[in-house]
Amino acid sequence: MTDMHWDNAITEVTPTKINIRGYPVQELMGRMTFAQVIWLVIMGDLPDENTSKLIETILIQTIDHGPAPPSCQTVRCVTSTGANLQTAVASGIMCMNRFHGGAIEGCFHALQDGIKLVRDEGISFDDAAVKLIDIYRKEGKRIPGFGHQLHKIDPRTVRLFEICGEIGFDGDNIRMVKALEKAFADSGKPLTLNINGATGAVLGDLGVPPNLMSGFFMMSRVPGLIAHSVEEMDRMRPMRKIHPTDYGYDGEPERHLE
Amino acid sequence: MTDMHWDNAITEVTPTKINIRGYPVQELMGRMTFAQVIWLVIMGDLPDENTSKLIETILIQTIDHGPAPPSCQTVRCVTSTGANLQTAVASGIMCMNRFHGGAIEGCFHALQDGIKLVRDEGISFDDAAVKLIDIYRKEGKRIPGFGHQLHKIDPRTVRLFEICGEIGFDGDNIRMVKALEKAFADSGKPLTLNINGATGAVLGDLGVPPNLMSGFFMMSRVPGLIAHSVEEMDRMRPMRKIHPTDYGYDGEPERHLE
Amino acid sequence: MTDMHWDNAITEVTPTKINIRGYPVQELMGRMTFAQVIWLVIMGDLPDENTSKLIETILIQTIDHGPAPPSCQTVRCVTSTGANLQTAVASGIMCMNRFHGGAIEGCFHALQDGIKLVRDEGISFDDAAVKLIDIYRKEGKRIPGFGHQLHKIDPRTVRLFEICGEIGFDGDNIRMVKALEKAFADSGKPLTLNINGATGAVLGDLGVPPNLMSGFFMMSRVPGLIAHSVEEMDRMRPMRKIHPTDYGYDGEPERHLE
Amino acid sequence: MTDMHWDNAITEVTPTKINIRGYPVQELMGRMTFAQVIWLVIMGDLPDENTSKLIETILIQTIDHGPAPPSCQTVRCVTSTGANLQTAVASGIMCMNRFHGGAIEGCFHALQDGIKLVRDEGISFDDAAVKLIDIYRKEGKRIPGFGHQLHKIDPRTVRLFEICGEIGFDGDNIRMVKALEKAFADSGKPLTLNINGATGAVLGDLGVPPNLMSGFFMMSRVPGLIAHSVEEMDRMRPMRKIHPTDYGYDGEPERHLE
Repeated sequence: MTDMHWDNAITEVTPTKINIRGYPVQELMGRMTFAQVIWLVIMGDLPDENTSKLIETILIQTIDHGPAPPSCQTVRCVTSTGANLQTAVASGIMCMNRFHGGAIEGCFHALQDGIKLVRDEGISFDDAAVKLIDIYRKEGKRIPGFGHQLHKIDPRTVRLFEICGEIGFDGDNIRMVKALEKAFADSGKPLTLNINGATGAVLGDLGVPPNLMSGFFMMSRVPGLIAHSVEEMDRMRPMRKIHPTDYGYDGEPERHLE
Repeated sequence: MTDMHWDNAITEVTPTKINIRGYPVQELMGRMTFAQVIWLVIMGDLPDENTSKLIETILIQTIDHGPAPPSCQTVRCVTSTGANLQTAVASGIMCMNRFHGGAIEGCFHALQDGIKLVRDEGISFDDAAVKLIDIYRKEGKRIPGFGHQLHKIDPRTVRLFEICGEIGFDGDNIRMVKALEKAFADSGKPLTLNINGATGAVLGDLGVPPNLMSGFFMMSRVPGLIAHSVEEMDRMRPMRKIHPTDYGYDGEPERHLE
Repeated sequence: MTDMHWDNAITEVTPTKINIRGYPVQELMGRMTFAQVIWLVIMGDLPDENTSKLIETILIQTIDHGPAPPSCQTVRCVTSTGANLQTAVASGIMCMNRFHGGAIEGCFHALQDGIKLVRDEGISFDDAAVKLIDIYRKEGKRIPGFGHQLHKIDPRTVRLFEICGEIGFDGDNIRMVKALEKAFADSGKPLTLNINGATGAVLGDLGVPPNLMSGFFMMSRVPGLIAHSVEEMDRMRPMRKIHPTDYGYDGEPERHLE
Repeated sequence: MTDMHWDNAITEVTPTKINIRGYPVQELMGRMTFAQVIWLVIMGDLPDENTSKLIETILIQTIDHGPAPPSCQTVRCVTSTGANLQTAVASGIMCMNRFHGGAIEGCFHALQDGIKLVRDEGISFDDAAVKLIDIYRKEGKRIPGFGHQLHKIDPRTVRLFEICGEIGFDGDNIRMVKALEKAFADSGKPLTLNINGATGAVLGDLGVPPNLMSGFFMMSRVPGLIAHSVEEMDRMRPMRKIHPTDYGYDGEPERHLE
């Protein structure tokens, strides 16, 4: 043992075993879903049934959003130079900053500010929401997670909260985000609660630490970025000029689960 | 429409809908698993039951392998400079090259060479395996996917093929890789079939195109890289010297699913 | 000393010295130019006067090429998400692949094929050029470094060879690339010798190994990428749609050295 | 012109010209040094003689610092996986964060705090330095740019200020950083002024905006990272375990300029 010895608490590897947070990986294979083992490796324990359902949902909901997001534009542009898949995908992840995906953690912090008002001042969530909007407005700050360039109603947010309702999942962050949504609507300037804002609330109520939150967006979107990179390789001319808005969709027409 | 107009066949986004390969995303949420929607977005259609089981397994099996792999070393080193999570994870993905994860696609191409021998020369898989090893040896090439620095038997490979057996999944690539494993053993110089080699065979028999194969390793390992980056942030001193072998494990002791 | 001990031959650092390829860094400071020390650190020795002149030139010539190149598009797109400067610049470097900057090394390899014809068949450079074009055409390959989307004559190529002429610098790679240029012109289908092709020839005649050649393009363009990233931060709205062709120039009007 | 039209003020490119900040690139080639054109592209104008000398020096001084820095460790680790040069170099740049190179800008901001004390309170630089150290200590903050793991005296700092002296270059940031160095020494706990701190002062007095400062470290170190990546490719076994401290130097013995 050297003086640089260090420990990790994630995975134990010996010649005969690979234990993920204590569980032999071969036991997890075939019995758990990928999303459940994601939760295990990141959070340290297997998720219960409700958490499993929410994590599958959260990872699915942002798996792709078409060619518009800068991460997709970047992946396609880098791919078109002849880059390999891993370099292209890495460049897409490097786009996940404050303005692209950052609202998950950003909204969570705002919700915490609101919850603090509830606790410190003994006021209702609804009153705290009105007050928080006012405070942010005076400081010239926006509340992350509200507003969307395209969607007036974000169908993912609607469905995520529907699922929360079905399984009876609730918490202070969800209460706060809904109070903010209501306060914006009551103010006569309604703002969409977008999927990032809603996700920040749900992850917060699931106990995910803030510095892990953007990881869920990364894991969710990587498959979409892979799909776009491979489509660019397979269908497009290298070094093409990639128009940021003049694109269409020529894939499968709308279809539905049975 | 400009002369730069282009189409994607992955996701259709309008103000009111987000359709992934035709399916409204809100229909997928709550009814599918993340792994199933990964298959949908990447391959274009929802997986059947057997494919679902295999994809969950393949994504779980390499979710982490402890501190040794260069992707983990790199993620921790980049994190220790004060990088944010997304930059650290991107640097880890940039390690997934020929010598790290590349054996999935590499083994598949070797298997295709072997299958070609079977077809062209009308010989058995076992004879083709012996011949392929001989050809590669003469050309000074190794067959990717065989041999492992640490594991004499890779527990993940054993379990993956066990699951294939349970669901009756088989194909020429699996047959070929098993014939190669046997040929190495018979030659008196047995070589472990590592999980990358086994995965190349299974993905090949599932019809995954070669340029998508490394994507499965990326998607699988990103959660592990996130866990290591956040652990580095939370537990370690910035700019520490990261020893590449002198580390231990101080997490949960071995535990088992019920 | 452990069994992992390794050596580097680039820089020796002790508590009291930092020697770059043997030279104390403080001796280089104030007496050499940056380009000369670049040559030292990469090639192992200080450049002579002619090499110095050529390296300064080669590093200047591609320092920027406006908003069109995919590396610039990517840097601006990544910057617009709120990324820091280093992440943005890294994403630009990740664009320097086969189709973007790759023609430096690509052209050099083609020139080596041509020089081999001269040597093996005892023919002139002009005859080898005609033959090489024919061989490549039959194999369906393009000779990298010829042709440019925009410039019919690349002003940088003209000036680079003018400087070579002024200092009397010549070599087989330069001879071969000029023979190819002539052969294309004589064929009735003239193709611009672009700056990447010309650079591959000059770097080849300077003795730069092929796996270092793309490094010169990286070093040259990084300042341009930094300029574009900072301009994007300072002037532009986050998350703007970046049009790939509809841009102008509103900087200093044309001016000249005294 | 579309409604997405945008302008850049860096480079004007037409079929017949490439003007960098107004200067035709072919005029710069052969007459300017690379460092001078770096200043032009980044700052907008050609540097005067003193600025030229300082910029050459600043770009040379940190061109490499051996195998210890995390950027070098990362570049070698990524290279060892089979990555190409550009991906490896990009990963090294991604290490240039708060704790690695960040002290250039960090020190500048501290110097600005000190200069503000001088102005607001009408005290001397020496008094402001003592006061600033006290303020930072009470806030539990370190002053970036002071202290070095290895060098008790940083030979680069000594030489940089020697050159400033030779050309008579001075300014408030340099005055402030020297006052801080003196205050630390007088306090009985002397702290090395490292090269990053000194560079922050000089770049500040040259009028470089803070968000450009880390760019100088990037441009300076990229050649070193290229040298390490290529040495790793040429000399080392893929996937080796890279020891972070047990390395030596087997290059040119110490030598001197004539």
